[in-house]
Amino acid sequence: MKPQLGVCYYPEHWPEAQWPDDAARMVETGLEWVRIGEFAWSRLEPNEGDLRWEWLDRAVEVLGAAGLKVVMGTPTATPPRWVCEKHPDMFALDANGHVRGFGSRRHYCFSHEGYCAEAVRITRLTAERYGRNPHIAAWQTDNEYGCHDTVISYSDAACTAFRIWLEQRYGNIGALNDAWGNVFWSMEYRHFGEVFLPNLTVTEPNPSHVLDFQRFSSDQVVQFNRAQAEVLRELTDAPLIHNYMGRTLEFDHFKVGDDLDVASWDSYPLGFLEDRSDQPEAFKQQFARQGDPDFQAFHHDIYRAVGKGRWWVMEQQPGPVNWAPHNPDPLPGMARLWAWEAFAHGAEAVLYFRWRQAPMAQEQMHSGLLRPDSVAAPALGEAAQVAAEAAHLDLADTGAPVALVFDYESAWAWNAQPQGAEFDYFRLVFDFYKALRKLGLSIDIVPPSCTDLSPWQMVVIPGLLHWGALKSALEAYEGVVVAGPRTASKTADMQIPIPMGPNMPGVDATVARVESLRPDMPIMLDQGGTFQFWREVVEGRSLEDARDGHPARVGTARRQYLAGWPDERALHRILADACDEASLPTLDLPEGLRVRDIGAWRFAINYANRAWKLSKHIEGAPSGRIAPADVSWWLK
Amino acid sequence: MKPQLGVCYYPEHWPEAQWPDDAARMVETGLEWVRIGEFAWSRLEPNEGDLRWEWLDRAVEVLGAAGLKVVMGTPTATPPRWVCEKHPDMFALDANGHVRGFGSRRHYCFSHEGYCAEAVRITRLTAERYGRNPHIAAWQTDNEYGCHDTVISYSDAACTAFRIWLEQRYGNIGALNDAWGNVFWSMEYRHFGEVFLPNLTVTEPNPSHVLDFQRFSSDQVVQFNRAQAEVLRELTDAPLIHNYMGRTLEFDHFKVGDDLDVASWDSYPLGFLEDRSDQPEAFKQQFARQGDPDFQAFHHDIYRAVGKGRWWVMEQQPGPVNWAPHNPDPLPGMARLWAWEAFAHGAEAVLYFRWRQAPMAQEQMHSGLLRPDSVAAPALGEAAQVAAEAAHLDLADTGAPVALVFDYESAWAWNAQPQGAEFDYFRLVFDFYKALRKLGLSIDIVPPSCTDLSPWQMVVIPGLLHWGALKSALEAYEGVVVAGPRTASKTADMQIPIPMGPNMPGVDATVARVESLRPDMPIMLDQGGTFQFWREVVEGRSLEDARDGHPARVGTARRQYLAGWPDERALHRILADACDEASLPTLDLPEGLRVRDIGAWRFAINYANRAWKLSKHIEGAPSGRIAPADVSWWLK
Amino acid sequence: MKPQLGVCYYPEHWPEAQWPDDAARMVETGLEWVRIGEFAWSRLEPNEGDLRWEWLDRAVEVLGAAGLKVVMGTPTATPPRWVCEKHPDMFALDANGHVRGFGSRRHYCFSHEGYCAEAVRITRLTAERYGRNPHIAAWQTDNEYGCHDTVISYSDAACTAFRIWLEQRYGNIGALNDAWGNVFWSMEYRHFGEVFLPNLTVTEPNPSHVLDFQRFSSDQVVQFNRAQAEVLRELTDAPLIHNYMGRTLEFDHFKVGDDLDVASWDSYPLGFLEDRSDQPEAFKQQFARQGDPDFQAFHHDIYRAVGKGRWWVMEQQPGPVNWAPHNPDPLPGMARLWAWEAFAHGAEAVLYFRWRQAPMAQEQMHSGLLRPDSVAAPALGEAAQVAAEAAHLDLADTGAPVALVFDYESAWAWNAQPQGAEFDYFRLVFDFYKALRKLGLSIDIVPPSCTDLSPWQMVVIPGLLHWGALKSALEAYEGVVVAGPRTASKTADMQIPIPMGPNMPGVDATVARVESLRPDMPIMLDQGGTFQFWREVVEGRSLEDARDGHPARVGTARRQYLAGWPDERALHRILADACDEASLPTLDLPEGLRVRDIGAWRFAINYANRAWKLSKHIEGAPSGRIAPADVSWWLK
Repeated sequence: MKPQLGVCYYPEHWPEAQWPDDAARMVETGLEWVRIGEFAWSRLEPNEGDLRWEWLDRAVEVLGAAGLKVVMGTPTATPPRWVCEKHPDMFALDANGHVRGFGSRRHYCFSHEGYCAEAVRITRLTAERYGRNPHIAAWQTDNEYGCHDTVISYSDAACTAFRIWLEQRYGNIGALNDAWGNVFWSMEYRHFGEVFLPNLTVTEPNPSHVLDFQRFSSDQVVQFNRAQAEVLRELTDAPLIHNYMGRTLEFDHFKVGDDLDVASWDSYPLGFLEDRSDQPEAFKQQFARQGDPDFQAFHHDIYRAVGKGRWWVMEQQPGPVNWAPHNPDPLPGMARLWAWEAFAHGAEAVLYFRWRQAPMAQEQMHSGLLRPDSVAAPALGEAAQVAAEAAHLDLADTGAPVALVFDYESAWAWNAQPQGAEFDYFRLVFDFYKALRKLGLSIDIVPPSCTDLSPWQMVVIPGLLHWGALKSALEAYEGVVVAGPRTASKTADMQIPIPMGPNMPGVDATVARVESLRPDMPIMLDQGGTFQFWREVVEGRSLEDARDGHPARVGTARRQYLAGWPDERALHRILADACDEASLPTLDLPEGLRVRDIGAWRFAINYANRAWKLSKHIEGAPSGRIAPADVSWWLK
Repeated sequence: MKPQLGVCYYPEHWPEAQWPDDAARMVETGLEWVRIGEFAWSRLEPNEGDLRWEWLDRAVEVLGAAGLKVVMGTPTATPPRWVCEKHPDMFALDANGHVRGFGSRRHYCFSHEGYCAEAVRITRLTAERYGRNPHIAAWQTDNEYGCHDTVISYSDAACTAFRIWLEQRYGNIGALNDAWGNVFWSMEYRHFGEVFLPNLTVTEPNPSHVLDFQRFSSDQVVQFNRAQAEVLRELTDAPLIHNYMGRTLEFDHFKVGDDLDVASWDSYPLGFLEDRSDQPEAFKQQFARQGDPDFQAFHHDIYRAVGKGRWWVMEQQPGPVNWAPHNPDPLPGMARLWAWEAFAHGAEAVLYFRWRQAPMAQEQMHSGLLRPDSVAAPALGEAAQVAAEAAHLDLADTGAPVALVFDYESAWAWNAQPQGAEFDYFRLVFDFYKALRKLGLSIDIVPPSCTDLSPWQMVVIPGLLHWGALKSALEAYEGVVVAGPRTASKTADMQIPIPMGPNMPGVDATVARVESLRPDMPIMLDQGGTFQFWREVVEGRSLEDARDGHPARVGTARRQYLAGWPDERALHRILADACDEASLPTLDLPEGLRVRDIGAWRFAINYANRAWKLSKHIEGAPSGRIAPADVSWWLK
Repeated sequence: MKPQLGVCYYPEHWPEAQWPDDAARMVETGLEWVRIGEFAWSRLEPNEGDLRWEWLDRAVEVLGAAGLKVVMGTPTATPPRWVCEKHPDMFALDANGHVRGFGSRRHYCFSHEGYCAEAVRITRLTAERYGRNPHIAAWQTDNEYGCHDTVISYSDAACTAFRIWLEQRYGNIGALNDAWGNVFWSMEYRHFGEVFLPNLTVTEPNPSHVLDFQRFSSDQVVQFNRAQAEVLRELTDAPLIHNYMGRTLEFDHFKVGDDLDVASWDSYPLGFLEDRSDQPEAFKQQFARQGDPDFQAFHHDIYRAVGKGRWWVMEQQPGPVNWAPHNPDPLPGMARLWAWEAFAHGAEAVLYFRWRQAPMAQEQMHSGLLRPDSVAAPALGEAAQVAAEAAHLDLADTGAPVALVFDYESAWAWNAQPQGAEFDYFRLVFDFYKALRKLGLSIDIVPPSCTDLSPWQMVVIPGLLHWGALKSALEAYEGVVVAGPRTASKTADMQIPIPMGPNMPGVDATVARVESLRPDMPIMLDQGGTFQFWREVVEGRSLEDARDGHPARVGTARRQYLAGWPDERALHRILADACDEASLPTLDLPEGLRVRDIGAWRFAINYANRAWKLSKHIEGAPSGRIAPADVSWWLK
């Protein structure tokens, strides 16, 4: 497939007279897609039932006539003021019970039936108008579910819906009391009507209660999205997409993705590094103009899985953003690099956000491809370069050799019970991902529902809450497996299983006890590196001991369990050895240089702010140096 | 004018038998002014309508008979409990909607009509009683507007008043929607009744919404003060004063000052350094017993502008205070130095706070001129020394050579949209002020409403939101101008102007884009120093480039725009060069030593905890050393 | 008395079939006590009046029949859901007015009359059932009063009760206004119904108001406990105990203890070091697997005083806990060391918490003597070792040579008015305690109500709010006294006394003023070390000056007042000299090594993670080395 570019556009922000010129300039730049409509409700329906399609009709016509394919967004992330007047209790409440009201965006509770009906209604009306419009080539549902911590709501509507959800899950209150262990601290309920949400407790609530509330909250997002998808299915044949947000874990993206055709995400590398990274300050300084070299790739791989192979970048940072603590300019070339990196991971399309920087309201300091005065911003030229380079390229992902299991429930569970201040599921999995990437590997993210692991030579499973469906897949699997720490240490109800974990197929081991560690007290390992933050005392056949004599890794060379959170050095060594065992060739990539294989092509991507000699670090690479912010690709 | 000293006194705190002795001792110390009454409402009117003037009559008589001039305060900053019973919704609400109730002070919402009427009523009663009393030589309205973050209130009363204010400003809701850019995120309103206050939103509210709410909130303070001033004007000829608080920016002091005769402020140098300073910890340690060498001077210069030349220090720290994280003793001599510094900046009077340390309630750990047991505290002797030294001195400010523009709206705007974590308007302007002071300059603070800049040889304009009235003044001005960064980057509605800023008279330049910087990624400048926190990519004639090739300064030597926030070294260099261009002689003062010219006198003030040889650092100074915490003055 | 061991057990968590085996294994380990019942309300009374004693009858029988003595807990710390349905306003409110509801534990307001009646009712029912049961050898009231900050409640019930309490204390509102100094800021009340709780004020509330609210809140705990004690006294002759929590200061433990027979506390050395320590990070790292070498001892000594000689450890950490930021494994041997240290301080019994790690709910990551799968955890063997070692030992405390005054009211007062960010009463007293311990001393904690100091050779009094009863005791005392800083600087109403403090018997000195210090500005002392955080300028006969010339210590060698907070070095020197004066022999113990004398025995306890040669550091000690986490004892 030829990589395609596009852009996000808001015709309602600009005089109609400017639309044709904008459209022509998009086409001239080499853009093929334009996303519109997702925040336009107040212009489509300024009062209840007072529908104003005409301007949007004309905008679609102008864009389509110019040769652009349109992604139409349902406008449900920003209900207008009158919707909120009609449904004054439609807002989410935060954990303190404070309303999260009108005045920005995402001001609705997923459990509010009245608002859900409004969302379906406007979706239906929009789809009726544009479902068969030839220029509309894809649909986006809502916008960035979960952004601004909007999945969890402590509203009355959520409480009511949670009780119903619990009743459906457990059938009777005794089963719930057993699953949560409510005999502890006399927390037993007599009926479902006695259950409240797990906020405003004196000390921490029951983690099983929290986990179920997270599951419920995630299911409410799935249900909200499904309601829109069902309406759209009736009225259009175009593919359905949602644009997920980076490091947003409060709902199960795999489950939302099951109702859609294509996954996409909104990629803001510099904002994410400043605002959502666990890396030390020196790292953030070093990559402040490039972004974390692995963060985008990790999400690309997640959404390739969520989309079952079909995925986009729906919003691509073009220059400084407005929402991180610091918002620097990207290095020249990054707007091109980020797009190529997405294509190297199999993206069908990359859309820059946004066409022209808005001069007003919340995002007026967020750059676009054009400045507010319509002069080209630096990213416009980079986009044109990508379009030209991509014109004759055909890329198709054919699968990676390594599978890394990623599970939203585990993130919720360990968030409910970190046990150590640094224990964060995303951070743990991302550490493993970074180590694999430094070894030059291409990676497939795999959900825990995966039942066949045979496509991969190696499977890596850090911190999985419980085995679930994966257990039988593992039993049938013949490749190399690296699991742990903390993997399968709980039941699905978030209790400690008896016999105690990990109960890992092929590994006879029991975790006797665990400890969380201060950052200044790492555990030295015999073969180099340390365990940090987390370590387990494991009974089993030791592959390597820690200096204090407890096993650090147990099992066999082809199926091992890690009894702690390895630091970068240890992780590199352990995974390199596992790759050897799996007959996977590895590299040792220098800082910021990354490799991704797609089909017959190998891409090299340089996030460093220095050049590297490619052939020195990557066997078979072309000679010559790769500049900072540059990309190189060749047939392997 | 001969510098005058005074003190704040609370006769209601002490046995009546002690008053004559206190008054005699004040006079003996050389004090001429005594401020009373501003917290005494519960003693003046213990129940509604039950007025008890007699004790205050006697107190005024005792003080006046001793030869003291009395400042009478209106007691509206501390309404008694019964007022709150009568108006149970008179309290401000914080951003979370929590009431800010009775039990300390400033427990009222400026928008509450019932309380505003009570405040006017007690003001009228007090003025009827004392308006023509010969001992009352000045009036103070309320006390420290805005202290404890009390300007902003999210009460229902504020919401109602805000809607009226908006309707008056915009006339129709369409104009408001355009000004705020509410089409963005479907935030459009159908009528003014749909507008709420900009709190409790899901993510950040519209910055135009926030800015207008700040303007409104400031106007409510102006209106509250004006209502008292109008009553007082009817009933007294004495000058009207308000005592502003340091680094309190939530309302426009210039506008409040327009209704009064004299500006004053409450100067707590050690508390401010510990509690309200952006300086690094090592700086705070070094000046912990002296205060920031420029902080007091900056406020002196602001309030000279607010008072149109007439200004006081209404409360002067005499020893340790009680409200900062750490409350050390001042160096011996500082209570004298601070008073002299105020006089050097043109203060008519300096009143120490307070006469005797109170043994009870919130401020019992706040020192006075006397200890609780009436023994003299160290500051009493220092005050007496100042009084003796001032006896035959005549000081009159005749204007400084440099104007520095300071604008409250800009503080609100950048607070609503900092874009970088360190971007704070006060900090930016104060950095420029400090650099000018280190160059030995005397400075006039100028509001953005200034229409004639001809009195000054140089005008400095950092971070001004938009030009406003200043634009035509600049067009007519022939002196040297240094503006930027961020100056005139917005419209008055807080949108990006087209053409884009700065649109600076005499400078052909456009800011193409901006970036905020991590503190660890400064931009090196070609001629020394760096840009920190903030930098702009500017198109225009470069006077100096940054190392990365972008212009750092554009324009001409006499009219330049700075494309970033210069660090101390760069700022010193740039402003020294500008002074040369303006034919302003400069010094290079060492740490803690400062100079201020007033009329024919030059004052040297030593905040350092070491001595300096004066003539080495200041041409024309007398020979000899200036000790720590000492002051020296001579005829230039 | 022979030291006794025990364990906390939850029969309701385990199948009944497992009880006999558990009981047998406890006995086999050498345990004599088992505590049960304190969280079992929902199983004892699943619906109102539906009492289910049978299972508990059988549990008591199984345990008793095995030879164990049972501690029965009243289950009032965890009222079941139905109690909360019945009393929907029984919850405490936090300072923001947010409810602290059902879903964990301690979800009740001590002032709620309805809940207090429920607590008395279930206590009476339990005592009627088991008061004369021969296996029940002690009773525990409730569980960890004050844990999770549950003493203070801002509920309506608390407000109502506070007004009654104030009326009883002051008689008329004028007396309250005088005591609080309410004339300040017009805070005067007309009647008690106008007083609210000291939350939600604009700036800080009156410290006298806060202090009285703390006294009231403490009294509510005393009253709540007394109500249970009175019921139990009617129905049982077994001793009554409460298990206090470490560093929990919000109520007066001495007063609660007055209604009980035995004091006990819950000792979690590693959790406390991570979560409740003022020590620097390097110290926390060094002792992360051992705990602070003085923290447990300090509490042992407090509760020996609270229990008037009779005290236990009711819950002893056996391995990692679940509630601190980091939860490491103890060093092997610590579960033994901690028990022996308690016995060395006179504990009658030490009960490990808990028997078997629970696989469910909030504490599933909290270790027990057994793993969740019933395999022995490391602490089981250590407990057995202690039991064996203790079998033939007889220990009886006969009093220590040094008294250290500890006062809960002082903690509340300085918390209401720290004046310096680091000023914390516990921290101050604990610094003195640590210094005394490093000198090898055994210490008695003494409440401020002590009227006879003659048992001790030396009395140390840091930071006592006001003298109270202690003044006449001091006047009669002939030993060495070290007092200050801040001691007796206030009246009981929290005003500054006139004459000003300390008004210390035998010391003619006046504190002229005080200052709080940044951590980076210590005051050097002439004889070594510094004052940190706090210093006073004192008039009096100087024993030692600070480098700045002000006296650092005043009085006489046998009765001195310290004019600041000495750092570790200064405190060691000053207290060593005072011991010399008191003819008390001292040691200079190395890091982590501590000594405790009990009767004729001397115990050495090694918290260090290195061994020490005992006889080198402790005269008269046996030869040989003491290993890390080891204990040694010998007849002096």
